[in-house]
Amino acid sequence: RSGEMAKSTQLIDNEVFRAYATYTTIVLLKMMLMSLVTAYFRITRKAFVNPEDVASFGKGENAKKYLRTDADVERVRRGHLNDLENIVPFVGIGLLYALSGPELSTALLHFRIFTGARILHTFAYLIPLPQPGRGLSWAVAYAVTISMAYKVLKTA
Amino acid sequence: RSGEMAKSTQLIDNEVFRAYATYTTIVLLKMMLMSLVTAYFRITRKAFVNPEDVASFGKGENAKKYLRTDADVERVRRGHLNDLENIVPFVGIGLLYALSGPELSTALLHFRIFTGARILHTFAYLIPLPQPGRGLSWAVAYAVTISMAYKVLKTA
Amino acid sequence: RSGEMAKSTQLIDNEVFRAYATYTTIVLLKMMLMSLVTAYFRITRKAFVNPEDVASFGKGENAKKYLRTDADVERVRRGHLNDLENIVPFVGIGLLYALSGPELSTALLHFRIFTGARILHTFAYLIPLPQPGRGLSWAVAYAVTISMAYKVLKTA
Repeated sequence: RSGEMAKSTQLIDNEVFRAYATYTTIVLLKMMLMSLVTAYFRITRKAFVNPEDVASFGKGENAKKYLRTDADVERVRRGHLNDLENIVPFVGIGLLYALSGPELSTALLHFRIFTGARILHTFAYLIPLPQPGRGLSWAVAYAVTISMAYKVLKTA
Repeated sequence: RSGEMAKSTQLIDNEVFRAYATYTTIVLLKMMLMSLVTAYFRITRKAFVNPEDVASFGKGENAKKYLRTDADVERVRRGHLNDLENIVPFVGIGLLYALSGPELSTALLHFRIFTGARILHTFAYLIPLPQPGRGLSWAVAYAVTISMAYKVLKTA
Repeated sequence: RSGEMAKSTQLIDNEVFRAYATYTTIVLLKMMLMSLVTAYFRITRKAFVNPEDVASFGKGENAKKYLRTDADVERVRRGHLNDLENIVPFVGIGLLYALSGPELSTALLHFRIFTGARILHTFAYLIPLPQPGRGLSWAVAYAVTISMAYKVLKTA
């Protein structure tokens, strides 16, 4: 039993891997938060997409008027999809990067800049900030992922 | 050579990791199934989006009438996107959780409840079941992922 | 310190895992490329979705006319979403497959066919090639993922 515990905690005992675990969990939780923000806007703006979601508002035309798109809801949904498009590569490439033996300080720099840039991106999208706020935060996180991918390909 | 095999099977020899491997594969296969369900509804409802997909139905207006949205197709696609939004965090956070040394029984509880809830969510979306069926199954899987994230952050 | 480095490079010293690292990084970079292709078409077709993105084109109606959908932009976005739907299962199931102790030659065959099929899929979608070009390349990559999932479930 203790042998198994040793095996299971081996990777997480590595400092770089532990940093990867922390920042990956943070960005994935941030991405999950977009679901709650979407739900919040759907409920406050009364803008739904599934007929069964508006059944409690009454029957027929009374309920149907809430089956509509809303600019704020669509904005959150675009932010959520952009998270998926950019956080999925970070999680995959970041894992391989963490296992490729980088210096802890270099790895932390990558993970922290990515995480900070994606949090900024969300604020830039939802407030919204004037461009190039959103564009720059997107580009910084993108560049960090490319940098990690380069290290993985060089090592593997 | 045998040294390498040992290394490669080391993680998968760990019981918690083996459970993670099984349930992650099941939920990812379930998510992949949504592609086949979408294809099924596109073909039976004759509702396509790419002009090249309807070329076999004839030329000009004859084919163009099949370039349309269909309520059932859109419903499956929403279920597929909801899978992506929720199964991606499970796969990423679940891996880190499995490596954080949880008790096997606790880990199994997390993996099984998540998997069950996401399968229920798909049925609730596609049948569709009246609310809060879909909402509850979504929330249960969401809470399980948050619980695993908490364990990862506490350990790392 | 050296003990930790040893641990961190242990997995990446395994030949199958190194192959997984290489091909996963390639397909994730390919998926990330779709963001740049989308940006290219949005800018050349002048088709944007966020009001703040067209603010530099002037005020009022002058800028609003660029808030529109464009067939080429939508095509790239569908290709990007299809990547997410298919590359996410590959990254997750592929990792577990790489750790399940497959023969190197068998693993390379899986990784290379998947990667080739997904690159073909992108060309088939963007050119676009007549069907069943896109359909076949999608199906081949899908079958490779199912084959890896079968091996994982048999081992775990």
